[in-house]
Amino acid sequence: MIKAKAICLAYETVKLPNGSLPLLIPMSEVAGRMSIQEGSRFLEKPQLGKGILLGGVPGVKPAKVLILGAGTVGINAAFTAAGTGAEVTITDISLPRLRYLDTILPKNVKTLFSSEHNIRAELPTTDLVIGSVLITGDRTPHLITKDMLKLMKPGTVLVDVAIDQGGCFETSHATTHTDPVYVIDGIVHYAVANIPGAVPYTSTLALTNATIPYAIKLADLGWKKACKEDSALASGLDMINGKITFKAVADIYGLPYEPVEL
Amino acid sequence: MIKAKAICLAYETVKLPNGSLPLLIPMSEVAGRMSIQEGSRFLEKPQLGKGILLGGVPGVKPAKVLILGAGTVGINAAFTAAGTGAEVTITDISLPRLRYLDTILPKNVKTLFSSEHNIRAELPTTDLVIGSVLITGDRTPHLITKDMLKLMKPGTVLVDVAIDQGGCFETSHATTHTDPVYVIDGIVHYAVANIPGAVPYTSTLALTNATIPYAIKLADLGWKKACKEDSALASGLDMINGKITFKAVADIYGLPYEPVEL
Amino acid sequence: MIKAKAICLAYETVKLPNGSLPLLIPMSEVAGRMSIQEGSRFLEKPQLGKGILLGGVPGVKPAKVLILGAGTVGINAAFTAAGTGAEVTITDISLPRLRYLDTILPKNVKTLFSSEHNIRAELPTTDLVIGSVLITGDRTPHLITKDMLKLMKPGTVLVDVAIDQGGCFETSHATTHTDPVYVIDGIVHYAVANIPGAVPYTSTLALTNATIPYAIKLADLGWKKACKEDSALASGLDMINGKITFKAVADIYGLPYEPVEL
Amino acid sequence: MIKAKAICLAYETVKLPNGSLPLLIPMSEVAGRMSIQEGSRFLEKPQLGKGILLGGVPGVKPAKVLILGAGTVGINAAFTAAGTGAEVTITDISLPRLRYLDTILPKNVKTLFSSEHNIRAELPTTDLVIGSVLITGDRTPHLITKDMLKLMKPGTVLVDVAIDQGGCFETSHATTHTDPVYVIDGIVHYAVANIPGAVPYTSTLALTNATIPYAIKLADLGWKKACKEDSALASGLDMINGKITFKAVADIYGLPYEPVEL
Amino acid sequence: MIKAKAICLAYETVKLPNGSLPLLIPMSEVAGRMSIQEGSRFLEKPQLGKGILLGGVPGVKPAKVLILGAGTVGINAAFTAAGTGAEVTITDISLPRLRYLDTILPKNVKTLFSSEHNIRAELPTTDLVIGSVLITGDRTPHLITKDMLKLMKPGTVLVDVAIDQGGCFETSHATTHTDPVYVIDGIVHYAVANIPGAVPYTSTLALTNATIPYAIKLADLGWKKACKEDSALASGLDMINGKITFKAVADIYGLPYEPVEL
Amino acid sequence: MIKAKAICLAYETVKLPNGSLPLLIPMSEVAGRMSIQEGSRFLEKPQLGKGILLGGVPGVKPAKVLILGAGTVGINAAFTAAGTGAEVTITDISLPRLRYLDTILPKNVKTLFSSEHNIRAELPTTDLVIGSVLITGDRTPHLITKDMLKLMKPGTVLVDVAIDQGGCFETSHATTHTDPVYVIDGIVHYAVANIPGAVPYTSTLALTNATIPYAIKLADLGWKKACKEDSALASGLDMINGKITFKAVADIYGLPYEPVEL
Repeated sequence: MIKAKAICLAYETVKLPNGSLPLLIPMSEVAGRMSIQEGSRFLEKPQLGKGILLGGVPGVKPAKVLILGAGTVGINAAFTAAGTGAEVTITDISLPRLRYLDTILPKNVKTLFSSEHNIRAELPTTDLVIGSVLITGDRTPHLITKDMLKLMKPGTVLVDVAIDQGGCFETSHATTHTDPVYVIDGIVHYAVANIPGAVPYTSTLALTNATIPYAIKLADLGWKKACKEDSALASGLDMINGKITFKAVADIYGLPYEPVEL
Repeated sequence: MIKAKAICLAYETVKLPNGSLPLLIPMSEVAGRMSIQEGSRFLEKPQLGKGILLGGVPGVKPAKVLILGAGTVGINAAFTAAGTGAEVTITDISLPRLRYLDTILPKNVKTLFSSEHNIRAELPTTDLVIGSVLITGDRTPHLITKDMLKLMKPGTVLVDVAIDQGGCFETSHATTHTDPVYVIDGIVHYAVANIPGAVPYTSTLALTNATIPYAIKLADLGWKKACKEDSALASGLDMINGKITFKAVADIYGLPYEPVEL
Repeated sequence: MIKAKAICLAYETVKLPNGSLPLLIPMSEVAGRMSIQEGSRFLEKPQLGKGILLGGVPGVKPAKVLILGAGTVGINAAFTAAGTGAEVTITDISLPRLRYLDTILPKNVKTLFSSEHNIRAELPTTDLVIGSVLITGDRTPHLITKDMLKLMKPGTVLVDVAIDQGGCFETSHATTHTDPVYVIDGIVHYAVANIPGAVPYTSTLALTNATIPYAIKLADLGWKKACKEDSALASGLDMINGKITFKAVADIYGLPYEPVEL
Repeated sequence: MIKAKAICLAYETVKLPNGSLPLLIPMSEVAGRMSIQEGSRFLEKPQLGKGILLGGVPGVKPAKVLILGAGTVGINAAFTAAGTGAEVTITDISLPRLRYLDTILPKNVKTLFSSEHNIRAELPTTDLVIGSVLITGDRTPHLITKDMLKLMKPGTVLVDVAIDQGGCFETSHATTHTDPVYVIDGIVHYAVANIPGAVPYTSTLALTNATIPYAIKLADLGWKKACKEDSALASGLDMINGKITFKAVADIYGLPYEPVEL
Repeated sequence: MIKAKAICLAYETVKLPNGSLPLLIPMSEVAGRMSIQEGSRFLEKPQLGKGILLGGVPGVKPAKVLILGAGTVGINAAFTAAGTGAEVTITDISLPRLRYLDTILPKNVKTLFSSEHNIRAELPTTDLVIGSVLITGDRTPHLITKDMLKLMKPGTVLVDVAIDQGGCFETSHATTHTDPVYVIDGIVHYAVANIPGAVPYTSTLALTNATIPYAIKLADLGWKKACKEDSALASGLDMINGKITFKAVADIYGLPYEPVEL
Repeated sequence: MIKAKAICLAYETVKLPNGSLPLLIPMSEVAGRMSIQEGSRFLEKPQLGKGILLGGVPGVKPAKVLILGAGTVGINAAFTAAGTGAEVTITDISLPRLRYLDTILPKNVKTLFSSEHNIRAELPTTDLVIGSVLITGDRTPHLITKDMLKLMKPGTVLVDVAIDQGGCFETSHATTHTDPVYVIDGIVHYAVANIPGAVPYTSTLALTNATIPYAIKLADLGWKKACKEDSALASGLDMINGKITFKAVADIYGLPYEPVEL
């Protein structure tokens, strides 16, 4: 691209004034909903899990789902898990966020303040854990460490939706749709790096809905004027005429960095 | 009444062809809803309970309610408990009944097949137990025995709605609205014999709705014709002209019994 | 068993006076809920499906699920599918059943009178079909014939929960959890014969809840007295002292049949 | 008013710092809810519509409602339409808005990103369209053009709630409660300019709730002080002592404009 | 028909063993849902009503709807009225029916035991009354008499869905879709005799769903065999070869009656 | 503390930039939910109330609850009251707040614009009033004055959650959990100053969730650095080294005040 003197905009650096990343949210929505679909699948016995059905049946209690992190992924996972009839607990360190969720989520979702103490207390009775903690611009913390795996019963499933940012379980490493899970200490780990890739029909429409207004703006105004008028687009400019204008990228490759303004 | 050669109909023996007792159902509805109101009150610390709020608040998990028996009392207790935001489990030995409840109850109610094993497993994490098992024409079984009290944490509250039939906890004895609770082994027992008496406005209307059609029929037709036409009324006849026509009553008092037909 | 002069009771012939089969219902409940879990999995692109997410995401419409038959399987499938956010249509030839479902199912489930005309009209826009039509004691009709596969888009998934009774799609043949799907004319067929086997933890508890009262009765009373007192148990007697007492079984194997009464 | 040297405040220019128009919102709420009431009426056959019942009945699918624009009018229309049991789709170009609606609206409402492509795809199966797109300070765009009428079946009803701003259908022109509809190309157009006028009891209370705090402030402080203290009131000042202080009004009438500050 | 020696089956006399009329239920469902649509329309001021919006808006209380009779019409009216956000009360003399409705209806519907006392107490604050009391084979009682009109405020709307059976308001007389309402003592009366006729698309499908199985049976077996096998069809036989086989019809016309059996 | 040269932070003055008091919100949540629990208890006849059950039973209308003020206390009271099945009205002077509540609260809650006129109109039919109006930094207004008590029926219960700020009923004075109620003009007043104290288990967890992040920050950084970095903590500093740094406190005790900055 440097040789081609390309002008490049990166989806993941298009950022709104309020700090949100509008081109990443749709994929978080898909991943949050998919995380329960994948988790329930790997709870099946032939798929290495406990052999428990998320929603139970009348007379048999449902499975317990623990969702770590109440951002876009977490709330979508919570709605989907609740829809199966499972008993769901969602944690976060933001009380205002938990208050909001308490108001709108179905009644089989409980909110719980996030702390190591509270997470440890949940694990022995939990069947499925969704890791959806993302700290913008930083590595995801390890909310479940290797030693904590012992707290869970064999066949419990961990789904790490934060694997792109390093994962929120210490024992996570990225997997693929072809070979999605592995087992450590009896605990099934699912950590596919590109979850939405399994449902391209939905994901493509979701992504296009978010990108098309920017694409039209670029086409109508040309990139220069578009980026001047729209600060989100400007923040997406990672390369101009082959010069790297996004510092983190320049640093990683040891290449010279030029601020966009120049 | 014998001297007065009275003709007596008893509310509790008016029975429909399908075996239900139409003049007792309204009081079961009131008692079922009240049982949660009373239970939540005695969970307050100054009232001897654990000091836990049924619904919790955002970030703090709700209390757990266990309802034993899914009849009229149980379903009314379940709806009311669910309305507070508590985590509710309702048990019964009838799977068809649990299937129906699973369909219509709010999502924070779980159905559980009733067995001593299942009840024992619930007690250590339960905060409030509603005993609402009634076996028509028989003594209520003791679903929680004295030794099982040890399974619960101090301050747990037991509400025995079946106290009229002998109670469904071994350690139950009838109490009054003036002095409603006592503590055994740290467990708070509530066993007021006439729960609906605390809300006479509601109870009177509820009872009247059920009785008025029978009263009108008696007034319109006279007792003889009314009882001939309506088998439910006939089954309510306990005394005719001073002669006892209900066998169980005659037996208890060692008095002669004459069948209604005579 | 004949040599051993065994006394045999078969789960599938224990029948209540109202004609229902109490030991089969729990497995229908599990299968109904699982059918959506399996269907959503095989809608994923790497699993041969359309690559569509059942619930969609905000701004992208959800997938459409068509459930053929509103019995135990169908209602459980409908609740589970609705919980994902999908757009669900459930069909049946019983209007009273549809009226009941219309009252209790979530609002994203529509009821539709079952007819070939109506089913054909739904197929072109449907993503997932659940076949859950069972006719007691008879072969399941083929609601979707081979030529109707052409009405659907490639990657549509058919889940045949009635495969034990011959299946309700003409192109169904039984598969296993090891190799659960095959594709005909672009349509993915899932027809695992023992769906509940994938979640043995839940299935075992569900089945035990239903069977334990009968087991206790047999243990307490002995088989003879138990079968005399309980007509459901009696109907389950397929062999007594090595003699076949269930006509259909005797006929299939060309062996002599002796009525239970003898 | 100029002669009378009046001091005038206009409801429609009272504007809060966040740009919202607090004295117009109540009428949008009423209009949004009324739009479904009117639309369902004109879907009746004797009223020129398709003769379809919004909610259908068990066994017969409900009608489809398409709501263009998810502002105050749109969300109120969506709740009301969903309440009838109709199948509802609501569109908007704001994904954050659709995400919020997806969380709080009933499950028979689907959110769809707004684009000409998506709208065209919906029209052939839609029975009722609510046009509720308002662009503050600008003409409403024509989301349905004359040629698009052909996409719909005869008897489809269009309700144009934006008729005050020019309407969001190309073929809209304002009508009255006396003569509310007209038909073009078989499509029934409802475009009453003052929808809330049909329910004055509700509308008056709603409007008064919004205006009374301003009226009290004016009465207590006098207009000068009130307008100084409250920027919303100040923005409502269109004339002071007969001089026009709202530029758009001055321009339209070709009269001199004096800024409020003078 | 007598001359033509016709064989006639009447929809309204096809009766199931449980006494229900399967070919009339669909029209009751349509009429129940339509009754709220019509009632809300005539509450509009230009349509002679109070000018009140059923659902109110935030800050303004909703209208009050009183539904007399909790049969098929009543429950459908209740769901539809609740869906608008109105405050709904439904009455019946059957407590078991009210108990069932209390369980499944939305929370803005209250159940009330039906009595003249209770109805009189509701009328002064009610905006819309739906009369849906039907007594099979008998004249509908007048639940609202002429003198009770004075209890209501002018512009209150009465919808009499029972007008076919004589109406459940003393002041009702049948009207048409062309001229649907009249006013007595300030109270708007709507009493269209064929409400479902306004939505023929929905009504035809609903009716066909109910009739088609009978039509197929008649076509497959011939009327004689069909009526022998299906007692519901047999009860529908009003004329055979020109002889009247339904007593009530024969009596009305003073013609000879021959029992079907002959 | 002055002698000890203490450094003091007060929970009630820790204030976020948006003006909210993060360490007080949890207690408002508990108090709001408890207010209905206490109110329903004192509506019992032996507890001096009307003897009415909040939720009624089928055939008997529920009690009416009026909640004055839609802040944290009010919304929590509204959810809890709605959960019992009561008919709930919540008032506020903020229309945007009522609009939000209208969207998320259960359907048996009505929103009403707050005015003396509207409150007076509600009182004659209200059974339980929750006073939850708080004006930050100011005395609570008396929404119900002594003369308004006459509008209510004897046995009506008033719960004053704002008693800490002087109460929102003119006749309120603080009570205790030991002696929680008193009666004036037949109206039962509940005004316990520390409602959450009755459920210490829940309250302690709720409070700790809110305080622990601040405690950790103080421990990690020392108070000086922590208060510099976190303006909420800084606003909580009421005393530094024995010098009063919160003006209101200094003024009340007539002691010298030194701004924090010094």
